[in-house]
This record gives sequence, C-alpha cells and structure tokens, in this order.
Amino acid sequence: MPRGGTFNLLVGGPKANWPADLTEKIVGPWIGVDRGTLRLIEHNVQPVAAIGDFDSLAAPELQRVRRNVKDIRQSQPEKDFTDTQMAVSVAFGDYGAEQVDIYGATGGRLDHFLANLFIVLEPQYKRYANRIRLIDKQNTISFYLPGHYQLRKEPDKNYLAFIPLTSIDHLSLLDEKYQLHDEPIPYPISLASNEFTGETGEFQFDTGVLCVIQSCDTYEARHE
Amino acid sequence: MPRGGTFNLLVGGPKANWPADLTEKIVGPWIGVDRGTLRLIEHNVQPVAAIGDFDSLAAPELQRVRRNVKDIRQSQPEKDFTDTQMAVSVAFGDYGAEQVDIYGATGGRLDHFLANLFIVLEPQYKRYANRIRLIDKQNTISFYLPGHYQLRKEPDKNYLAFIPLTSIDHLSLLDEKYQLHDEPIPYPISLASNEFTGETGEFQFDTGVLCVIQSCDTYEARHE
Repeated sequence: MPRGGTFNLLVGGPKANWPADLTEKIVGPWIGVDRGTLRLIEHNVQPVAAIGDFDSLAAPELQRVRRNVKDIRQSQPEKDFTDTQMAVSVAFGDYGAEQVDIYGATGGRLDHFLANLFIVLEPQYKRYANRIRLIDKQNTISFYLPGHYQLRKEPDKNYLAFIPLTSIDHLSLLDEKYQLHDEPIPYPISLASNEFTGETGEFQFDTGVLCVIQSCDTYEARHE
Repeated sequence: MPRGGTFNLLVGGPKANWPADLTEKIVGPWIGVDRGTLRLIEHNVQPVAAIGDFDSLAAPELQRVRRNVKDIRQSQPEKDFTDTQMAVSVAFGDYGAEQVDIYGATGGRLDHFLANLFIVLEPQYKRYANRIRLIDKQNTISFYLPGHYQLRKEPDKNYLAFIPLTSIDHLSLLDEKYQLHDEPIPYPISLASNEFTGETGEFQFDTGVLCVIQSCDTYEARHE
C-alpha cells in the first residue's frame, strides 16, 4: 500500500469542473469519496481506498466498487464528519500522506463546495491546512496558517486572490500588483483579482486562516 | 424608470450555471454587471442600468452596450468596491429595489463567487442581507441576520444547508430533519445536506450572519 507523497481525492462534484484529462495526468494514488469512487473506476483508476455511505449508488455500481477497492470505509448517512473530511483523515492518518489534493469539490451543490472550503477551519483539520488543496479546471485553492510565505505562480493562472476565511491580523501583501501593509481584516472577504508581478508572491499575516486562490479565465468564459 | 420590487443582476459567471431559460422566465428589471450586460442584450433584454469597467469587452461590444443602456456607470479597474457591490448599491439606493436577485455569480472563478457570497458581511451591505439572493441552476442562496425565521421550501429543491459565515450564537434548527438547539458555532461551517420535513423550516440565532442554501441534484449529477 502506498505511503507518503501526494494523495488525490476525487469527490462527487460535476466532471465539467475537473481539470482536463484529470485521471490521465494525475497518476495517483487516488482515494474515492462516495460517487467519486465509481468515476475513478470508470476512468480505469483503481483507488487505494474509498470512503462514503454510497447510498446514491445502484446495487451493480456498489458491487463494482467492492470488486475494485480493497480498503472501503462505509460511513453512516448521519454522522459528525463529512465523507470528504473522513477521506482527508484517512489520507493523512492511515496512509501518511504529505499532501492531499482534492478534485471534484467544486461546481454543483454549493453547500458541498463550502463544506470542503471550510474543512481547514475545523480544529481537527487546521494542522493540515497548508497540506490541503482544492483543484478544479480554473482554480487552485490553498490554505495558510499565520506566517510569512512566498507563493509560486502557476504558469496557466493569471489571477491571485487572498481570502481570509476568518478575521486575520496584520495582512501584508508585499510584492503583488495590489499591496497591503499590516491590514486588519475583521471578517471573511475575497480580495480578488490581484496579480503576481513576477514568478512569486510574498505575503504574511499574524492570526486566523487565509485561503489563496490562483485562477484563470477559460476560453469559454471569454467567448461564450 | 422602474422602481421598487425585485431587481435582477446578471454578473459574468458561466452561462452553464444559469437557471434554465433565465432571461425568458425572469422578466426584469435587469441590471447588467460588466460582461453580464452584453449577455443580457444578446438575449434581447434591455438592462435598466449597467455597471462595470467593461475592460474585457471589445470596442464593438462596448458600443452595443452604449446603444442599449441609458444608465451606464463606468467603474475604475482599481477600486474599493467590486462591480457587483456597486450594482447592489445602485439597485437598492438609486432604484429603490425591495429585493435583489443575483444571477451569474457562481461557477468559473471561485474568487469571484466568494466575493459575491461575502458581500453581506461588509458593514455597508449587511443591512440588505435578507433582501439579497444568489441564484443558479442548482442553488438558491439567501442570507439572514439574527432573528427567528420560517423559511419556505422551494418545490424543486431537496436539500437545505445552514452555513454560518461568521461565528454565531444559539443556532436552533427547530423542525428540520437534523435539528440543533442553542448551538454555538465558533467559525464558518457548512451544515449541509439537511432537509425540510414539511413545506417550511423554522430556525433562529442570536448573533452573526447566516447563509442558507436550498439546492438540488441535477439529472447530469446523478447520471454523468
């Protein structure tokens, strides 16, 4: 069983939001979350583990999951943690993941997306914040605890957003196009449409949890 | 010029997320935000007003906007408020809107979506919270300030989520499938996948700002 390195989670959001050629480009290991498990198998990926109540799967679909995944953790429909949270725990706790990249977390139901976005605010998950990313075809979402950081620009992303998910103190954006200096941020806000001025972006803050989104427009967005 | 009632804003998110037959079903009045203005005109809707820097529009597109909209508010690319925020101010302040429904606010760039989601946390906009909704093909997002409420179930929506956007006190979900009683919520969280037990859902809380999402699965989500 694989240990360490990056684990990829596929949750049940719409395929339309996946990065192009997701399952060919990202080799694995993969963990399936609920219907995401079936989608991995349909794309000829054998997940190392699967988490979910699987109550939306038809009987033959569930059998297909059982045939293809050794480590299945069946969750209860009424539970304190979401399937995605459980999968994050399994990846870090049982498989010793260094990094967890979550796909299929955007689009569709926004209560699901926000549950995924806010995972890192839960006390049990906060310590993993800078090792979790949510990735879709237009956005890479990463998370930061207080400190000083230098962020690397992704080649295909033009926009940079700083999004305090809680109140945070002394936010400084040091070399971005639009800068801030020791700004107190009293409530969640999306400081969107900033840009890198070079290959990296430097920032720091003192308290709270900061989300950073690198994003791009799609061809469709510009031309539809 | 129309006054009062519901004003509809169209912002620039992907059409794929619009409710079906949006511009036929929602008669207006409409306010266009940046590229949303052009999309309204392309759908034979004459917006009462348009807000944006319009810097992503080609010259003929901008001319088309100018020919079709009397009340154009050109914003600066570097500004303290987003175009959507300005449009909300124009609708409530200049047009006396009772309610503002925002379409095109989801999908695509998530820094934009979160900027729209967090508008009601801004002190200048908080008083409008319960008169603003974000609507897409699967989600209706509404906002609440402290109080006691009875929410009406939308016929096509199965899921109900309560999403404190700040810490909130004494959250009670009184007659929903999964109930809470005087629960303190210390940080933003998406209490997702709840359900109505009848035609209405009763809830109350004492402090902070609460977002409520009614959502549905799509046919594609179940069968893709």
